[in-house]
Amino acid sequence: MVDFDLRSANARLRASNPLIQCITNTVVQQFSANVLLAIGASPAMLDHEADSAQFTRISSGLLVNFGTATNQQFLAADAAIDAANDDSTPWVLDPVSIGAVDHRTTRIRRAADSSPTAIRGNASEIAALAGIGLGGRGVDSTDEVDAVIPGAVELARTTGAIVAVSGARDAIVAHIDGVDRVARIDGGHEFMPLVIGTGCSLGAVTAAYLDGATTTSARFEAVVAAHAHFKVAGQAAAAGAQGPGSYSVNFLDALHALTGEQLATARVEAGTVEGSQS
Amino acid sequence: MVDFDLRSANARLRASNPLIQCITNTVVQQFSANVLLAIGASPAMLDHEADSAQFTRISSGLLVNFGTATNQQFLAADAAIDAANDDSTPWVLDPVSIGAVDHRTTRIRRAADSSPTAIRGNASEIAALAGIGLGGRGVDSTDEVDAVIPGAVELARTTGAIVAVSGARDAIVAHIDGVDRVARIDGGHEFMPLVIGTGCSLGAVTAAYLDGATTTSARFEAVVAAHAHFKVAGQAAAAGAQGPGSYSVNFLDALHALTGEQLATARVEAGTVEGSQS
Amino acid sequence: MVDFDLRSANARLRASNPLIQCITNTVVQQFSANVLLAIGASPAMLDHEADSAQFTRISSGLLVNFGTATNQQFLAADAAIDAANDDSTPWVLDPVSIGAVDHRTTRIRRAADSSPTAIRGNASEIAALAGIGLGGRGVDSTDEVDAVIPGAVELARTTGAIVAVSGARDAIVAHIDGVDRVARIDGGHEFMPLVIGTGCSLGAVTAAYLDGATTTSARFEAVVAAHAHFKVAGQAAAAGAQGPGSYSVNFLDALHALTGEQLATARVEAGTVEGSQS
Repeated sequence: MVDFDLRSANARLRASNPLIQCITNTVVQQFSANVLLAIGASPAMLDHEADSAQFTRISSGLLVNFGTATNQQFLAADAAIDAANDDSTPWVLDPVSIGAVDHRTTRIRRAADSSPTAIRGNASEIAALAGIGLGGRGVDSTDEVDAVIPGAVELARTTGAIVAVSGARDAIVAHIDGVDRVARIDGGHEFMPLVIGTGCSLGAVTAAYLDGATTTSARFEAVVAAHAHFKVAGQAAAAGAQGPGSYSVNFLDALHALTGEQLATARVEAGTVEGSQS
Repeated sequence: MVDFDLRSANARLRASNPLIQCITNTVVQQFSANVLLAIGASPAMLDHEADSAQFTRISSGLLVNFGTATNQQFLAADAAIDAANDDSTPWVLDPVSIGAVDHRTTRIRRAADSSPTAIRGNASEIAALAGIGLGGRGVDSTDEVDAVIPGAVELARTTGAIVAVSGARDAIVAHIDGVDRVARIDGGHEFMPLVIGTGCSLGAVTAAYLDGATTTSARFEAVVAAHAHFKVAGQAAAAGAQGPGSYSVNFLDALHALTGEQLATARVEAGTVEGSQS
Repeated sequence: MVDFDLRSANARLRASNPLIQCITNTVVQQFSANVLLAIGASPAMLDHEADSAQFTRISSGLLVNFGTATNQQFLAADAAIDAANDDSTPWVLDPVSIGAVDHRTTRIRRAADSSPTAIRGNASEIAALAGIGLGGRGVDSTDEVDAVIPGAVELARTTGAIVAVSGARDAIVAHIDGVDRVARIDGGHEFMPLVIGTGCSLGAVTAAYLDGATTTSARFEAVVAAHAHFKVAGQAAAAGAQGPGSYSVNFLDALHALTGEQLATARVEAGTVEGSQS
């Protein structure tokens, strides 16, 4: 049984105010920046190949998301990933739109083979990356979280990454000391997938929580804390929301207001993946 | 006299949850995605020339808007338009910023000659595209809607597209069985043009409503339904709005809350264009 | 002693509804456009090298911000700056991310040497541009405003620009008739730096207020008016704000609602820079 100290994870984040470099799609850049600011991190969206790696050297974490990648962004990501790995800076891969189109799928698979600290996507995307599904259409999840856990386990084993599957219920998978561990997190609200960027920005938040987590266990906890932060705030944001517009506003307020004590109330269920011990 | 069944148009949209590919300007991508999600469609902003056409093949509709187009976006749009025409997938051209600058004007005219299903712009833009005016400055309308109806009629005849002119009062023009039809729609609110993207996102919504409309009459109805959705929600959004910020939030809530019954209450006035029958 | 007529500056802005071309980063484009619309200006984000200069010719002001600049944006900015200088159109340089990375720093320094009408940044950025500090990390200020006033004075003398340092307290510096003048402005709120774009959009607002200001004194007043507009609205926006999400909504409402009378109540303290007269 794993016990997560979400309160300490949050305290560490707030104390370090990590600078997170986001090479991410233009649709969600504003929202992702506001989300990072709300949780106590600093965003920077530098994505030019001439200086992206130099910026990674002074960053505490990196997010790579090819949702609207240009040729320059692909080059910038290659350089930034190398710099992150060189410096042991945590970096998160969001495989958004994998499976739908070949060119992007090839680039995402190459990134997945470059030692990401964590991979975060919805069920369709994780399934496509694991080769157990056909991928979804854009950013909406069409498969179920539980159905992709075997694929997530396989990804965690082969890439060494913590693998997070986001959905109505999140599942975070880690391969630690030969054991496949999983944490399931409930919360959020039905309006959440109607706000663009609630998935993509979670990748940035995951990178922020990973700052300072050096063991696989600590990283597992950090990724769980990031997802729990969204689940608890996402539930609180429903109070008074009249639709996805006001929900989005409330969500930023709730992300910011959330205390370590409240984070510790997240509905997290941890265990090992049945039948997966090798 | 034409009768529009807006309730059925909305029911069809909600049932199909169409995937809409938006090759659009970076200023309005987030807002457009949130608008599509609010009305029950799925947005995807893929705009890389290496895979844009492949994505069009799995999309239900396409929007092309060159507001901040890069060379890659221009190429991506060319490929996506060809794929949409091949598959008879509806696509919408937003001629934003036509007339102001030559390079863009050339590209927009070429797209207009590529059989768009619908063209949506403000009065200045439609006038410039029809060659009856000098174009506006950016996205603000400086001409009046009624003054450009002759130009819209000409465009509808030559391109085969449904032509929509957005403004304080919208006008939708279609050339059906040798008759030039027009529908005028009232509603909205004075804060609406103060929220960036309320014009550009309407092009995306138009593409969503066009899914499943195969005759010119059905397409006319679909474009009217899209504009009516905005006019009714835009009026409802004024309740409690203190300015353009809160209005924008209310607008997303109202787009989402709108029922088919409410849509059917839109103030639509349909007729034929006087003196235009050929 | 300098007296500012902020009421007249605001009246001029509202009467002229200036068209402001923003070559700016994709993270803040939507917010900047909404801010410009809220204060009564018209935004346009054209940034393609093939037509950016042509657009500058019909614009009333230009903002250059290389936060996420692509190669195309760099070229577009070069052409637009030349056109602005040719036409004596005011243009504002935002040196965001200077100091952090070499490639961008080189491009920003070159732009600073191209006769900007005003330069607006946070303390770290102004310090880095003046060569008196190491620059910050992204858009957050880590130095204090007062500490960079000598650097701002030096920049104002060498570039001929009005130099604005934004922070919890803003400082605007101008070199007028051999005297170094400074205006300090208080206001705003602690949530303001938690909303992405409240800095970058102020550069666009500065360009809007500069329309019609032809002398250095008038430009000094215009830049002060722009910053005062933000400080007063930023303070009003705190009423009822539950966090950075609702604060951001309130801020747009407050920018729009602000009257010339309210602007004139801004807490501005003007004087000369001690020990700096040459």
